[in-house]
Amino acid sequence: MPKVEAIRWRGTRLFLLDQRLLPGREQWIEISSVDAAIGAIIDLMVRGAPAIGITAAYASVLAARARGEDRAGWEADLDRLEAARPTAVNLRWALQRMRHVLESGETPATGLERLQHEAERIHLDDQQGNLRMAEAGSALIEPGSRVLTHCNTGSLATGGTGTALGVIVHGFRDGRIDEVFACETRPWFQGLRLTAWEFDREGVPCRVLVEGAAASLLASGRIDWVITGADRVTANGDMANKIGTFMLAALARQFGVKMMVVAPVSTLDPDTADGAAIEIEERSADEIWRSAGIDQPPALARAFNPVFDVTPAAFIDAIVTERGVLRPPFGGAVEALVQGPGDGS
Amino acid sequence: MPKVEAIRWRGTRLFLLDQRLLPGREQWIEISSVDAAIGAIIDLMVRGAPAIGITAAYASVLAARARGEDRAGWEADLDRLEAARPTAVNLRWALQRMRHVLESGETPATGLERLQHEAERIHLDDQQGNLRMAEAGSALIEPGSRVLTHCNTGSLATGGTGTALGVIVHGFRDGRIDEVFACETRPWFQGLRLTAWEFDREGVPCRVLVEGAAASLLASGRIDWVITGADRVTANGDMANKIGTFMLAALARQFGVKMMVVAPVSTLDPDTADGAAIEIEERSADEIWRSAGIDQPPALARAFNPVFDVTPAAFIDAIVTERGVLRPPFGGAVEALVQGPGDGS
Repeated sequence: MPKVEAIRWRGTRLFLLDQRLLPGREQWIEISSVDAAIGAIIDLMVRGAPAIGITAAYASVLAARARGEDRAGWEADLDRLEAARPTAVNLRWALQRMRHVLESGETPATGLERLQHEAERIHLDDQQGNLRMAEAGSALIEPGSRVLTHCNTGSLATGGTGTALGVIVHGFRDGRIDEVFACETRPWFQGLRLTAWEFDREGVPCRVLVEGAAASLLASGRIDWVITGADRVTANGDMANKIGTFMLAALARQFGVKMMVVAPVSTLDPDTADGAAIEIEERSADEIWRSAGIDQPPALARAFNPVFDVTPAAFIDAIVTERGVLRPPFGGAVEALVQGPGDGS
Repeated sequence: MPKVEAIRWRGTRLFLLDQRLLPGREQWIEISSVDAAIGAIIDLMVRGAPAIGITAAYASVLAARARGEDRAGWEADLDRLEAARPTAVNLRWALQRMRHVLESGETPATGLERLQHEAERIHLDDQQGNLRMAEAGSALIEPGSRVLTHCNTGSLATGGTGTALGVIVHGFRDGRIDEVFACETRPWFQGLRLTAWEFDREGVPCRVLVEGAAASLLASGRIDWVITGADRVTANGDMANKIGTFMLAALARQFGVKMMVVAPVSTLDPDTADGAAIEIEERSADEIWRSAGIDQPPALARAFNPVFDVTPAAFIDAIVTERGVLRPPFGGAVEALVQGPGDGS
């Protein structure tokens, strides 16, 4: 079991670990309404594609309790939840599962127990999927390897041990991974604040670096695999992830380093043809300026602050899911995996 | 004339603008000893390869006044100054010029006036060289171009209008440059704190971005030139510069964007064969962690914090100096330029 949790469902109550305060403070906040959940997602109290999906699923249970007989109101709540962040597909996927629980004509009140069961199922499925991905991803790594990861993809970003981070922790314990590097992940410092802390909790030594130093590291022959999560994988194998991922993938290809993407099936989006069709969230310029202590930027200066980028399928050597590993060319394989046995839908 | 200055020599006194406080506060600090100058260089009160060289030249005048008849003491002061930062070659170059002022057997006291004159000459030469580079670099840029720069290479980094930043300001006023992007430049945020401020002062709109977003920008076709300064250019055309420069150059090459390096002849180091021989300064891990508000990193986490990287000559399309523009292949050209007319040495 992971030594860190991001989301707790206790009876009928939802609690989130406030990730904005980490690593300095571990504070759990009760989320008691859909609006509070939307705020938590937008303000990055909870982040990471799978964790956002799980949070939204539980929030839809809170909404069902509040709405009672008002199914239209409940549906509207789910629409608002779905719009909280546009890039990750898990949010939409989780809410789609929740919507399917209610029969035609049924009210949230009558389906409440089944809704709660489904949210717990989504959480549990993610935990189990994480373990399968950790094993499958680790198996691809030669003993003695050195890896570089980006952003945070561990227990804080998922319902279980994580995606890319789960693979790395498993690979380290298995003796396959000797050295771990983690990008600091601007502008929000997920690497410094969350990933270094999680690796420490899991007993894995790591070295952090600024993104600008990744090129030197990759070109020096000191890295065998770049391993990241994903916020969305499209039908052709393109994928959106935290800004900087495409930079790592492009440099990895240029310098002969392999690139592994670790993502649950809930992150696969075969309905979107390719990366060009993914909406890339731009966030406030303040997120950049404030880190340098600048409250009032110069009048003529603006910011370019996309928080995700798209890595083309051509730069990816393996996509690891809980239902198996995809290898290039990915065409058709993403959809086949989603349609495949085990989903039940 | 530049609207910003970093170094002032008033009569016989040296003042530095404390760049650690920018852009919030403009505070001039008097530097009254060699030790104070060494501290200012190490602590980044003054930074930028040419500005460090000029500061060291003036500091050697302060040292001459303090040492009087003690030539050996003065030489030792210069050795300590030279060791303050290892990567930029301008520091060594400027002190070499100062050493040549004193005849064999002469004392600092007798040569004091000539030493002061030489330091002022180094400062003035840099100013004039900046203007020539601005014109020569700008002339390479097609009207309507979009450029991306890194770190700070303006008046704060030099004795005049700057190297890469000088080219961009000139090109903007000349109508050759339509859009300017600047990387924030981790871990010290030179881009956010200094470059955005200088562009604003010079009337040039710019957009800042985290280094991780540069790959998306370069791959999108929205950039025509990456333009940076250099801390050292070796005989074969390899060059060391702020960490992240190699990342930009590698991606620029991968995505068909041109790469311009702007550096005065004092940055050329034909005595060093290639980039592999350049000592790369690693700075304290605290510089990374503190930006994320982390005073006590996790026990198992360390940092990889090289503050420079080496860009191979193969990724560079033009090296712009005050004595002309070098184009690949650079072999022999770097040394020829240094030996060429105009140096007098």
